[in-house]
Amino acid sequence: MINKPSIPKGTRDFSPLTMRKRNYVLEILKKKFELFGFEQIETPSFENLNTLLGKYGDEGDKLIFKILNSGDFLSKAQIDESTTSKAIIPDISNKALRYDLTIPFARYIAQHRNDIVFPFRRFQMQNVWRADKPQKGRFREFYQCDADIIGTKSLLAEIDLIQLYDEVLSSLGFSNISIKINNRKILSGITQIIGVDDKTNDFLVSLDKVEKIGISNFKNDLHKKGFDDHAINSMNLIFDLNGCNSSKISKLKSFLKDSEIGLEGIKELNQIINKIDDIKLKCASLDFDITLARGLDYYTGSIFEVKSNDYDIGSIGGGGRYDNLTGIFGFENISGVGISFGFDRICMALESLNLFPKFSEKRTQILIINFGEFEEKSCLDLLKKLRDEGISSLIYPSPAKLKKQMQYADKNNIEFVIIVGQNEIKTNTITVKNMFAGTQENMPFEKLLDIIKN
Amino acid sequence: MINKPSIPKGTRDFSPLTMRKRNYVLEILKKKFELFGFEQIETPSFENLNTLLGKYGDEGDKLIFKILNSGDFLSKAQIDESTTSKAIIPDISNKALRYDLTIPFARYIAQHRNDIVFPFRRFQMQNVWRADKPQKGRFREFYQCDADIIGTKSLLAEIDLIQLYDEVLSSLGFSNISIKINNRKILSGITQIIGVDDKTNDFLVSLDKVEKIGISNFKNDLHKKGFDDHAINSMNLIFDLNGCNSSKISKLKSFLKDSEIGLEGIKELNQIINKIDDIKLKCASLDFDITLARGLDYYTGSIFEVKSNDYDIGSIGGGGRYDNLTGIFGFENISGVGISFGFDRICMALESLNLFPKFSEKRTQILIINFGEFEEKSCLDLLKKLRDEGISSLIYPSPAKLKKQMQYADKNNIEFVIIVGQNEIKTNTITVKNMFAGTQENMPFEKLLDIIKN
Repeated sequence: MINKPSIPKGTRDFSPLTMRKRNYVLEILKKKFELFGFEQIETPSFENLNTLLGKYGDEGDKLIFKILNSGDFLSKAQIDESTTSKAIIPDISNKALRYDLTIPFARYIAQHRNDIVFPFRRFQMQNVWRADKPQKGRFREFYQCDADIIGTKSLLAEIDLIQLYDEVLSSLGFSNISIKINNRKILSGITQIIGVDDKTNDFLVSLDKVEKIGISNFKNDLHKKGFDDHAINSMNLIFDLNGCNSSKISKLKSFLKDSEIGLEGIKELNQIINKIDDIKLKCASLDFDITLARGLDYYTGSIFEVKSNDYDIGSIGGGGRYDNLTGIFGFENISGVGISFGFDRICMALESLNLFPKFSEKRTQILIINFGEFEEKSCLDLLKKLRDEGISSLIYPSPAKLKKQMQYADKNNIEFVIIVGQNEIKTNTITVKNMFAGTQENMPFEKLLDIIKN
Repeated sequence: MINKPSIPKGTRDFSPLTMRKRNYVLEILKKKFELFGFEQIETPSFENLNTLLGKYGDEGDKLIFKILNSGDFLSKAQIDESTTSKAIIPDISNKALRYDLTIPFARYIAQHRNDIVFPFRRFQMQNVWRADKPQKGRFREFYQCDADIIGTKSLLAEIDLIQLYDEVLSSLGFSNISIKINNRKILSGITQIIGVDDKTNDFLVSLDKVEKIGISNFKNDLHKKGFDDHAINSMNLIFDLNGCNSSKISKLKSFLKDSEIGLEGIKELNQIINKIDDIKLKCASLDFDITLARGLDYYTGSIFEVKSNDYDIGSIGGGGRYDNLTGIFGFENISGVGISFGFDRICMALESLNLFPKFSEKRTQILIINFGEFEEKSCLDLLKKLRDEGISSLIYPSPAKLKKQMQYADKNNIEFVIIVGQNEIKTNTITVKNMFAGTQENMPFEKLLDIIKN
């Protein structure tokens, strides 16, 4: 039976050209993570199902890809007419694909706590999988690149990570980046002041959508959730904040004057902003945005979201501080802060903004023409010498027509074609054709080395 | 509910030290693949189930990890008491994790045939997953690193791949490698000569096990499969072959004199061996082994298997020529040849043979001591200057006791600790402690740069 070849929706094949571009970005990320003293770890692609379930909300649970148990998996399942798909999952699946890098990281920390020197700075660059509806910039398999500092409450960690965002994105050539910052303590303070601190989570969920749905829908949303008019109207302040960071902060500070947690958030925010002002960023501005909420439950302090002002594809990064992420795995009260780079979206932005450097398209440098048996030994010797010099080379595998071999070099963007025919063998020379310049020259082997190395 | 943190059996977490070693090997592989003119592709972690099923034999089908459909997967399944696990799989799962890199590669070639310039040289370094019983050197998630040349029948492709094995393994420091070679055409010739060419596959399956089970069990195995005594006794020749490659080949050649396909195999083998003899290998010998069969169905010509004679962990690589791998996906008669590097086993061998270089343990170079608020600005400025020079550095996040901060540097294998206290700020100097040498010196910043760059 012949299958028409295709791949699952939301997944992608990566061609050599795309791979060179992706590797270019991954290498910069890795280099900068290491420059900032982060250490790489990797965790398995699949985790025990109970490690992942319940960590991303009900919606998240649905989007986790579960792996069917091997062997006679039905033998452990009791199925009758009333059995639902959801109920049977734990009977037939005990593993699931990684949904993000954060929960596996928390599991890693808790599991290996005795081997880790805290504060621990880790980075991780691996695929994650989500059964989301595929759309522009959203895939079912995509890369996440995370950096976390765990085991310290110091705000220097936040400051380091903001600089890391700036360093990576400026190295990639971005010039107009906004790093939005807010603090969960400030948002808690607001709900406290307006007397709805029992509904902080509902408030956060609605606030998280405000940029998408607008202010009036946001208010309707809160109405439906049982917020009274007084509370909702008190929130107008949120949308009246404007001007620079310090004018927003000073207005908010007086609003929060009776909330201890709110003032603590203000203090943290202030310190971070002031120190980053001192240090100065290369390509980014740090912008306090009171409407930034971040969806995830585990954040407790600073939160971040990163956008390119030149290319609108939603956020290309995000993160925040968590005070007890590892608590779910029995390792309590280890504070940390982490950020994520949206690798696939960053690649899309670089493509669209034409920021990939030309060299990321470079490939094999030399093709040796194959004339057949008689010249073969000389060609293989030459090939070996070139490779021993570290020059990426190959020989055309069969003595096809010269035109066909030249076309092969052309289509593959190979710069030099080398001809070793009977004349060249006699004179111990090679003929080098520069495919880019269209020039051709007979020369000794050493001259080619000079050309390539300069 | 607190989950005791653990990971699925057969999977692994990789610590920073292990990651550095793995990256060291991956980088050499990638560099050498590129040196030989191979181009990287990647395919999705999961493929459509029907892309994978039926390609690896019945046993393989069982070992493929299937992914449960999302949503109400039971709604499309008809289950009653007689339903078997195997029968229900296609109803509840339409995707599965990659089992190797070869079938996804064949699917890729067939799917993208119009965008590919043949002969196409591709490499691929990605995880594969198998529901195998975990044991030493066998995991449920592991890396494969494959290189294939597809779209040519030229034996130069085999010669290139043998040199690639040699180049990679010698660069990694191996010195005593055996690249075993055989040819499926020779094996077909043998079954032809002894009159069992209708049972070639049975013969290959038994032969594949001969190294493990021994000659007499091999013969018993054939008996059970219905081979007669005459046929089995004729095979004694196989085990009587000894001496160097050419003496083995010449004996076999006369045995195969009446088999066209057998003689073709001999001719191919001879050409490859002679050319490799000319070229010379760095760390490997190319050894003709008539008992090498390779399990997989799709091989049709040369087959390879690679071992380290210094460390017995089974094969660390294997591959062969296939004449119609992409035929299952409707793209007929495209001959190619490919090899695989057993990445995880190579890492185990390097570890055991003590071949990892010292630098693969290197990490962050500098820790700046944190004395608190007063010194902080100077420290952050210094940190930025160091990183701008490309020097991997960090500041301890809180003003903990000096001893604790020193221990942190020590445990993390950080070479230099920098002290910027009030005296240093006054004199615009830094105090540098070399943790490896145990020395300490006050110096201007520029001197530190000199030390690190030399």
